[in-house]
Amino acid sequence: MNKIEPRTLAGTMELLPSEQILFNQIKEKIEKTYQKFGFLPLDTPIIELSQVLLAKAGGETEKQIYRFNKGDTDLSLRFDLTVPLSKYVAKNYGNLSFPFRRYQIGKVYRGERPQKGRYREFYQCDIDIIGDGELDVINDAELPSVIYTIFRELGFNDFTICINNRKILNGLFEEIGQKENSVEILRIIDKIEKIGKEAVIEELEKIGVLKQAIEKIIDFIEITGTSKEKLEKLKELKIENETFKQGLEELEFVYENIKLFGVPEENYKIDLTIARGLDYYTGTVYETFLNDYREIGSICSGGRYENLAEYYTNKKLPGVGVSIGLTRLFYKLNELNLIKTTKKSISNIIIIPMMENLEEPIKLATELRNLGINTEIYSNNKKLKAKMKYADKLQIPYVIVIGEDEINNNKIKLKDMETGEEEEIELDAKKIASKLKI
Amino acid sequence: MNKIEPRTLAGTMELLPSEQILFNQIKEKIEKTYQKFGFLPLDTPIIELSQVLLAKAGGETEKQIYRFNKGDTDLSLRFDLTVPLSKYVAKNYGNLSFPFRRYQIGKVYRGERPQKGRYREFYQCDIDIIGDGELDVINDAELPSVIYTIFRELGFNDFTICINNRKILNGLFEEIGQKENSVEILRIIDKIEKIGKEAVIEELEKIGVLKQAIEKIIDFIEITGTSKEKLEKLKELKIENETFKQGLEELEFVYENIKLFGVPEENYKIDLTIARGLDYYTGTVYETFLNDYREIGSICSGGRYENLAEYYTNKKLPGVGVSIGLTRLFYKLNELNLIKTTKKSISNIIIIPMMENLEEPIKLATELRNLGINTEIYSNNKKLKAKMKYADKLQIPYVIVIGEDEINNNKIKLKDMETGEEEEIELDAKKIASKLKI
Repeated sequence: MNKIEPRTLAGTMELLPSEQILFNQIKEKIEKTYQKFGFLPLDTPIIELSQVLLAKAGGETEKQIYRFNKGDTDLSLRFDLTVPLSKYVAKNYGNLSFPFRRYQIGKVYRGERPQKGRYREFYQCDIDIIGDGELDVINDAELPSVIYTIFRELGFNDFTICINNRKILNGLFEEIGQKENSVEILRIIDKIEKIGKEAVIEELEKIGVLKQAIEKIIDFIEITGTSKEKLEKLKELKIENETFKQGLEELEFVYENIKLFGVPEENYKIDLTIARGLDYYTGTVYETFLNDYREIGSICSGGRYENLAEYYTNKKLPGVGVSIGLTRLFYKLNELNLIKTTKKSISNIIIIPMMENLEEPIKLATELRNLGINTEIYSNNKKLKAKMKYADKLQIPYVIVIGEDEINNNKIKLKDMETGEEEEIELDAKKIASKLKI
Repeated sequence: MNKIEPRTLAGTMELLPSEQILFNQIKEKIEKTYQKFGFLPLDTPIIELSQVLLAKAGGETEKQIYRFNKGDTDLSLRFDLTVPLSKYVAKNYGNLSFPFRRYQIGKVYRGERPQKGRYREFYQCDIDIIGDGELDVINDAELPSVIYTIFRELGFNDFTICINNRKILNGLFEEIGQKENSVEILRIIDKIEKIGKEAVIEELEKIGVLKQAIEKIIDFIEITGTSKEKLEKLKELKIENETFKQGLEELEFVYENIKLFGVPEENYKIDLTIARGLDYYTGTVYETFLNDYREIGSICSGGRYENLAEYYTNKKLPGVGVSIGLTRLFYKLNELNLIKTTKKSISNIIIIPMMENLEEPIKLATELRNLGINTEIYSNNKKLKAKMKYADKLQIPYVIVIGEDEINNNKIKLKDMETGEEEEIELDAKKIASKLKI
């Protein structure tokens, strides 16, 4: 028979078991943290009706969609977890309690050209808090504590949650009458580190921004200092625009309240440069960076939006949320050797019988499982060497070899595979279990 | 703006949060049990290259595939977890330890016409043990203990794991020279309860089965009694065919060894009628039934196959596995009100502040979370009634209301929402945590 080469589609992640164990541990830590903050689980379908899923999409997003027909039905694979959430909340509005706090961890699909670290199928881990009509800004101050707890759980200390508020920049542009030019202005000012202040001023003049307006822009982008200093300097700009003032007030409130939620001051700050480009968000925005690895980019981002589900319902549903792109994060952390976790195997212990009658070894395995120990029994008829090699390759931390002698003497040797040490113990599941460091 | 109706594709399962919590508990119990037996996690992509995924498929399966092009690439959504496993093992052969024990829990896709209880997107929960060249039959005796542990964990006692061996029927057909007619003969004998023995004999004569052969078939299908009696009666048939004899030997061995793995005798039996139709399996086959709800059909099925990945590799990879169709199982159990689980909420406790300064209530929430308690704080500015309604609707088991008085007196009332009882406790996270029954 002709064989077909067993390939996996480029841009999808398929791990070896030892890596999958690590990946799942990270995923589980994220999920447990979301639950710790009282977010409810959701699991929406990966395939949706195109008409529903693409209600809003357009441009670049639409090009990346996996879209196809089955019979007469026009279907698409979800490209994020936010649109399905919008649909879900609009659909189930009457059955939900608001503020609706949900998490969803699942795969999303984008038909990208596959490159290193770019994925066509990848996990997103999202939380959102959705209000019915309104949602207090205090919720914006709670989310950084979720981010903080997750990255501490994952073994990181030196990371910074950067916060900003979209209304500040929007208000500034309104104030100087440059709302329509905002995309172009942002493009220019983001080059300041590369081309210098004078060149930026020149380019702004070229697109017709007036001198006074340019001064305000420059004053704004030159704001530096501590978070508190930035807040002061923003106030000193004396901008009377209502959007600006509201943004500043929200940013100050969020900044002041984050610490109530137990996030240490070294782990968050105001950064007026983040999330400038995304017009999806309308208020608070977040990006999170590992300080020693800024080149990875933001590892957890999100923000506040005014109206989640306007394409599906007249109900006003403001929300705030953050998302972790887990597949890419795992890839990067793995590449940089930054995954700090110790559990490398699923089984805590493996029992290797050295006799034909498996009754006693199997009984011990069952008893250990009943005590909550993940226990494997190597029941296949192989040489001891092959059996030990198997245990070693799977990195199972403890091994017990059982033969006639062990059963007759009612004693076994528990081998710690990391230290190589052996300890003689009574052949008793409880006594064995009590010796395991797991 | 015109609104689009927020619909979900028929044949997909999208649950309300309270149901999703139940679903996830069942999924987690299945996963933890798979891990308890030392199966390794796997997570293969949902989209695969059609050429690879459909190497074997044909006929009805192929019609049901969600298949589409993106650019030049011909892609399909996986329709089971077995083909991806075949690809994975063939691809990663050199990096795996054999016997390779893996579990995978994930969604699969079939373009069925949606009917009640039929799904286009559904979860399968699979375990398989794959041998390199060979795999001892003792593995076939281990899997029923995994099935047993899962359904006990899910709160069921009265279920039966039925086992059979495909070689017995295959050998019988070989013995009587009716191998080619086997599908037709199976179709006829499966009608025996409806049309009676005489009509079956008549139909068998009509398709040209000789009298002596019919006698053997009838002797076989009339075998009844306990599992041990069935084994005896199979021996008494005096069939000399090698396949038959091997099947009988394997069935007896599996039957005798299941009890070593701790499965009580009332939870398994030999049933010579199961899995007659599936020619995918080549040895042991399993089906599992809730005895009071046989109409649900088998809730966990599987079996032994000779060669997992023959379409991808020349390596001989025999295996044995079982699968739970979780989405359908959940649907049926829910419909019959058979889900026995107590945890109805994610949060263990909710803190309801009755004051503007949230410092103390938030501090308490953080401390409770650090003690491992899933804690929600209702930080939105609403009336007490609205806040209590929220806690009640989410079925959060404990509520603490904190106002100025509570903080001044350093005492709170912990309300048990099930009993309605209130207990006064010191405002101290550890003392509060110790009172929670979770």
